[in-house]
Amino acid sequence: MRTPAENAQLALLLEVAGTPKPGNVDRRRDLPDLRFEHFLAGSVGAGPGLRAASDGRPVGDAFETAVVGMADQSGGNTQFGALLLLVPLVATATEGKLMGDAVRSVVEDTTVEDAADFYRAFDHVAVTVDDPPADTDVPDVRRGSDAVADVETAGLTLQDVMAAAADRDDVAREWIEGFERSFAAADRIAARAGPVPDRVAETFLWLLSRRPDTHVATTHGERVARRVMVRAQSARDRGHVEEFADALVEEGINPGTTADVAAAGCFVALERDGIEI
Amino acid sequence: MRTPAENAQLALLLEVAGTPKPGNVDRRRDLPDLRFEHFLAGSVGAGPGLRAASDGRPVGDAFETAVVGMADQSGGNTQFGALLLLVPLVATATEGKLMGDAVRSVVEDTTVEDAADFYRAFDHVAVTVDDPPADTDVPDVRRGSDAVADVETAGLTLQDVMAAAADRDDVAREWIEGFERSFAAADRIAARAGPVPDRVAETFLWLLSRRPDTHVATTHGERVARRVMVRAQSARDRGHVEEFADALVEEGINPGTTADVAAAGCFVALERDGIEI
Repeated sequence: MRTPAENAQLALLLEVAGTPKPGNVDRRRDLPDLRFEHFLAGSVGAGPGLRAASDGRPVGDAFETAVVGMADQSGGNTQFGALLLLVPLVATATEGKLMGDAVRSVVEDTTVEDAADFYRAFDHVAVTVDDPPADTDVPDVRRGSDAVADVETAGLTLQDVMAAAADRDDVAREWIEGFERSFAAADRIAARAGPVPDRVAETFLWLLSRRPDTHVATTHGERVARRVMVRAQSARDRGHVEEFADALVEEGINPGTTADVAAAGCFVALERDGIEI
Repeated sequence: MRTPAENAQLALLLEVAGTPKPGNVDRRRDLPDLRFEHFLAGSVGAGPGLRAASDGRPVGDAFETAVVGMADQSGGNTQFGALLLLVPLVATATEGKLMGDAVRSVVEDTTVEDAADFYRAFDHVAVTVDDPPADTDVPDVRRGSDAVADVETAGLTLQDVMAAAADRDDVAREWIEGFERSFAAADRIAARAGPVPDRVAETFLWLLSRRPDTHVATTHGERVARRVMVRAQSARDRGHVEEFADALVEEGINPGTTADVAAAGCFVALERDGIEI
């Protein structure tokens, strides 16, 4: 019987193993500087932080610990977004039933100290994020620990920080919307048959075909993100998924946010639905 | 900085990711009932046992704990032999310098209780082993916990049990020979350049080309094991490794002991030599 922390670690591994996952590292594809083994090392390194979350340590602290361990490999950012979804889900699963209301409570209970630790996590790895809007009082996350004093002065909780990014980052949006897409992904993974990595890959493509990936929007613009969504729909309809996967790798387009949500969905399917490997 | 337990878990993952590893599950190949994701789940499940080894718990206890966790997936035996090599190596690394003399001491210090826990580990998963010789006082390991009373009566330590199997099982032989091939594999992995899974795969083939795999000998006979060794030499010489890999999967020949030694070598390269991922 795996613990919530073990299921989260396994979800990270099953997500990267699932293939084809267009534009992402998967069992069959590496990117030029980001390879499969970086994700393996990231999953192992995240272990202590995931266990901290299931030991009841505060969400921000557990997240920063997970990111420090994840970053102990040379590929750079492998699973920052996935961990940002998994840590509150692990905390929720440890407290009781893994469902939307319960994870909303975990989000509502976050503190200024959680927000400070979230900013500190940006010291350990380069994360691609959009510029914040000009009129916000929420510091730019890329300032990392340098912004902690400002976070404390403004009295921002981690929920506040996520709310401020929810319109441009679909990981933050999950935090604010009760992890809606993560649970929908879990329902889909749990409902299907066959090897779990295949189900995760299918669910990844389904997610990608329904909303523009916000990591793609940040790196290539909103128009490209929308076009990738339409291409994902077409690839699904015509069964041209391998070709689509090769094309996105070729074009250097990496729908990383969708992969984060797929990993979170896989965790929920393992933990809540008890799907078997 | 990964702990010894984390490096051991990562070694299990890097080993299964390395491709081509003729006859074994790897990043590109599944066997009919044993798939990549079973090894991922086995690696996650082995975590608590590996941590027990680095927390100084007795080797037999840590090993049984690792096997219980590893077996929590539907593929059957994924990493029993690899864990039997990794647990004493993790214990050695935790105590001090990871070298032959130190791991020999760990082996020499094993007790009857370690042997009893080793037998108990066979209750959790079906492991393919040879029939013991007719004249031995060492109980058949397949009896599992039923044999514990006989182990205790005979006063056998885990070292004694390994010594009795060393002539027909190259995992047991490592225990008795100071983990000679594991260290040689580590030297090779550490000396080469390129992605670590590629180095592990190359080292696997090198190991396979130098000694008949004892798991193949147990399942297919000594003659086939010797023939696989010769074919591995030829595949290396001619660069026909992918064809050889496909052929062994086709023939149902799985050099599992060689994979176990490759995983142990990868751990030593990570832990002793600090190779980077």
